[in-house]
Amino acid sequence: MSDEKQTEISTLGEFGLIEHITEGLENINNSTVYSVGDDAAILHYPSDHEILVTTDLLLENIHFDLTYVPLKHLGYKSAIVNFSDIYAMNGTPRQITVSLGISSRFTIEHIEQLYAGIRLACEEYNVDIIGGDTSASRQGLVISITCIGEVPLGKAVRRNGANETDLICVSGDLGAAYMGLQLLEREKEVSKGQPDFVPDFAGKEYLIERQLKPEARRDIIAELAEQGIIPTAMMDISDGLSSELLHICKQSEKGCRIYEDRIPIDYQTAIMAEELNMNLVTAAMNGGEDYELLFTVPLTDHEKIEKMKGVKVIGYICKAELGCAMITRDGTEISLKAQGWNPLANKEND
Amino acid sequence: MSDEKQTEISTLGEFGLIEHITEGLENINNSTVYSVGDDAAILHYPSDHEILVTTDLLLENIHFDLTYVPLKHLGYKSAIVNFSDIYAMNGTPRQITVSLGISSRFTIEHIEQLYAGIRLACEEYNVDIIGGDTSASRQGLVISITCIGEVPLGKAVRRNGANETDLICVSGDLGAAYMGLQLLEREKEVSKGQPDFVPDFAGKEYLIERQLKPEARRDIIAELAEQGIIPTAMMDISDGLSSELLHICKQSEKGCRIYEDRIPIDYQTAIMAEELNMNLVTAAMNGGEDYELLFTVPLTDHEKIEKMKGVKVIGYICKAELGCAMITRDGTEISLKAQGWNPLANKEND
Repeated sequence: MSDEKQTEISTLGEFGLIEHITEGLENINNSTVYSVGDDAAILHYPSDHEILVTTDLLLENIHFDLTYVPLKHLGYKSAIVNFSDIYAMNGTPRQITVSLGISSRFTIEHIEQLYAGIRLACEEYNVDIIGGDTSASRQGLVISITCIGEVPLGKAVRRNGANETDLICVSGDLGAAYMGLQLLEREKEVSKGQPDFVPDFAGKEYLIERQLKPEARRDIIAELAEQGIIPTAMMDISDGLSSELLHICKQSEKGCRIYEDRIPIDYQTAIMAEELNMNLVTAAMNGGEDYELLFTVPLTDHEKIEKMKGVKVIGYICKAELGCAMITRDGTEISLKAQGWNPLANKEND
Repeated sequence: MSDEKQTEISTLGEFGLIEHITEGLENINNSTVYSVGDDAAILHYPSDHEILVTTDLLLENIHFDLTYVPLKHLGYKSAIVNFSDIYAMNGTPRQITVSLGISSRFTIEHIEQLYAGIRLACEEYNVDIIGGDTSASRQGLVISITCIGEVPLGKAVRRNGANETDLICVSGDLGAAYMGLQLLEREKEVSKGQPDFVPDFAGKEYLIERQLKPEARRDIIAELAEQGIIPTAMMDISDGLSSELLHICKQSEKGCRIYEDRIPIDYQTAIMAEELNMNLVTAAMNGGEDYELLFTVPLTDHEKIEKMKGVKVIGYICKAELGCAMITRDGTEISLKAQGWNPLANKEND
């Protein structure tokens, strides 16, 4: 956090702070009737659309470390992770509420930066900020965002519709955000006791960006619609490919086979894994925070999928009895396990 | 928190815990299409209704003190405060999302109790739990609830519609929850170092109940509808009557006069104020957490309002130039100030 001019939040109070950070907010969605400033926001959706609701809770030192995460990036990412969940239902995000718990070391300028990131994400993705809550916190920053979106009636794509022989598809590449996190953690260690330390991220910009400023894949949703493809199941990859595949298979009551050599991995991710002496495939399978889309399509959509840039077929859905497995480069089958990032399994202090 | 059989949360993990606490949940509202278990919940509302969205963030040691708040009561209240906001818009709550940040001293049994309170509130008020998020927390218990409700198109009552000569009405009585809090704080002090201390709340049960197990005034909303009364402005009293009146007057660009001797106060509240040597009217005006409804109605509705049980006319709306004031028993005018409970003005540690 920067050390420029800083103003204590108590000079504004709760209502003053809310007025300050929501100043000049304009609603761009027709479905937003009334936003910040009453007991509740008012929305109106046509009855030929369904409404999607998702929520994420982000806690300091569990989900983010402010020693290397700039507040504006944190704000941006906090919004994006929610948008990603709405796209993963084949929907479009329209509104968010933003609740903040703010401890006393934060100033008005800090909250302005955080909120600037949230507002930027909303501008980029045409989402309205319609309300929230603001409170003091005794320990660290708390960010709770709820996102509301829409999808034409009956067009929502859940996790439970995958059928045998369906192709398993992944957008973008995996493991980069996780490698970005490892890199940031390493630089944090190296910088300890060196206030003037400037980390060198040359050649690793992509990893840092994937960790600090992820995007939600609305382009893939748009392209699927253009190609006339309706996935049979879909979700976003936030906890790692392995964990998400197991969710889809469990809810669809199916099994799966994916191929190690089909898993999309960026060059920088591979270099970094080597540098850190980490297993590249493990990072890609279990790293998490990729915010890519994992979806299944009928085999008959194969040609259409092949035409889509940035989407890769990594395997297929099979009978439940066959279980969920990855086929390695040498042809061995390895059972998939959910080793994804699980904040409840962490050792935490209280 | 009780010391009976306790199971560490890590034995279940995040997904296991979510499955455990949401087990057996059934949706009772037609507008809930699909709830817990996907990237987002799916809702469907008819287009002749508007959708209301409100959210509240509750943080340990800011909003609640677990030394005297039972977890089940806390869960109940966390839901109720959100329902109250929806009723205050003249709406009906239908769905909530529940996000929990849980520190390591909490066990599965603790979260079961908390969730039992949330579920009980939802059962009582016919609300569906449609999703949420669960995480470890380094900072005590975090509860973030978002509530979605509905109101017939154009029937939402905001804070900005009060007109000159409108009557100012309040449901129930004020200051009791605040007095309940003072009582609990006093017993906490007295009990220090006495593990077997049993507080005596005889004759003060109402105060304790108002603090620990408040209800939302759906009965008043129903009665207003029955009487054919549409308030010109309405909100719930969470931060204190004084603060809320100023909100309505500011947003309606009006002033107000209320009468000290018209402010509804329960007998137990008065006794407690005397016992603690506190100013009773200050407690009623600024105490907060009453979750009663404050609303304005046209003067022509006077007779209808008189017929409503549990509603009291406390004053009237006037021109903005006249400001906002209370007329005391001896006829003096005192300017209203928002001394309401403001958690951001607290001294907190970090």
